[in-house]
Amino acid sequence: MADTLILHEDPRSGNCFKIRLTAALLGLPLAVRGYDIMKGETRTPEFLAQVNANGRIPVLQIGEGPAARFLPESNAACWYLAHGSALIPQERFAQADMLRWMFFEQYNHEPNVATLRFWLRFVGEGNLSAEQRAQIMAKRMAGCAALELMDKHLAQHAFFCGAAPTLADIALFAYTHVAEEGGFGLGDYKAVQAWIARVETLPGFVPMD
Amino acid sequence: MADTLILHEDPRSGNCFKIRLTAALLGLPLAVRGYDIMKGETRTPEFLAQVNANGRIPVLQIGEGPAARFLPESNAACWYLAHGSALIPQERFAQADMLRWMFFEQYNHEPNVATLRFWLRFVGEGNLSAEQRAQIMAKRMAGCAALELMDKHLAQHAFFCGAAPTLADIALFAYTHVAEEGGFGLGDYKAVQAWIARVETLPGFVPMD
Repeated sequence: MADTLILHEDPRSGNCFKIRLTAALLGLPLAVRGYDIMKGETRTPEFLAQVNANGRIPVLQIGEGPAARFLPESNAACWYLAHGSALIPQERFAQADMLRWMFFEQYNHEPNVATLRFWLRFVGEGNLSAEQRAQIMAKRMAGCAALELMDKHLAQHAFFCGAAPTLADIALFAYTHVAEEGGFGLGDYKAVQAWIARVETLPGFVPMD
Repeated sequence: MADTLILHEDPRSGNCFKIRLTAALLGLPLAVRGYDIMKGETRTPEFLAQVNANGRIPVLQIGEGPAARFLPESNAACWYLAHGSALIPQERFAQADMLRWMFFEQYNHEPNVATLRFWLRFVGEGNLSAEQRAQIMAKRMAGCAALELMDKHLAQHAFFCGAAPTLADIALFAYTHVAEEGGFGLGDYKAVQAWIARVETLPGFVPMD
């Protein structure tokens, strides 16, 4: 019998959505436990001791009781779920190239595109610290550079690793399709727009909310 | 015959060192082509067109001539090199857990520990922009939090994924062992220090310089 899968999440988080979308595309049952990160619910002593010492969501819980295992980092959780499926290419270069886009997402895309959405939509510009405000312009430019690189690549390929969707598409879709909530206009990125539409029509697709 | 492997690198970069260390531990021959990122040598039209449209190193080149393929992102390049080796656990959870630490490295560790080293050691504090200076304190705190999380984990485990080294150790070793160049004292992190010594005595280990 397969292990119970439980996602510890905040439904407003694109990182959590990646895991729900992966499970949905694969037809895997996934229970969810909600936390409100704005209220510090992932920084309680219980959460830090039992779920993630890093105080962050998402965390994928595999199994229940004393044998439960906990997997932080959204892209690692997607990797676990997609084990042995067509969402992970098996060919050596293709697999490494998929991970390349997933590391790009965490390093070049998420800290800019997702962070500005979090700051502007959820924290509110008036509540930002001076240090945060000083970073807006740099994050705006870096986020646009990431979107432009994606657009150039997607002008030549239906999905990030070729003709079929992989975890790279799921990872990059999560915050790209809501980038306008962070003040990024997608109008200039025609190939990104067409790719968003392709992802949204995949069999089993579920929306973020 | 195996493909020629060429690393496009700047030898001062910990991200490049990860790939050299992986190849050394595996006994794989690796040619190198050097660039000086301080002189913009990875932003030339030739580099952007032929090696990496993202203008960054490291890039692992696999093969030569028209069939050459290029793999950016240090952790993805390490994944390619270590394919089928003991540096990647094959068990489903262990493999995902290794990737978890590699994504942690790119999101929580590198932007803090490596960026402060780059700013303070190579750019020079006096040459930083006001925006960069405003971020130093936040990066210091986030970097210390990453080191503390590593220290707690390593107090219980010889390596990040248990008794044997994996790519997670290589990825996290690269900037941790030179963290003092970014102003991070490692004196408080005894388990991290012991782990650094364990990595440095692995068969085939090569130093950064």
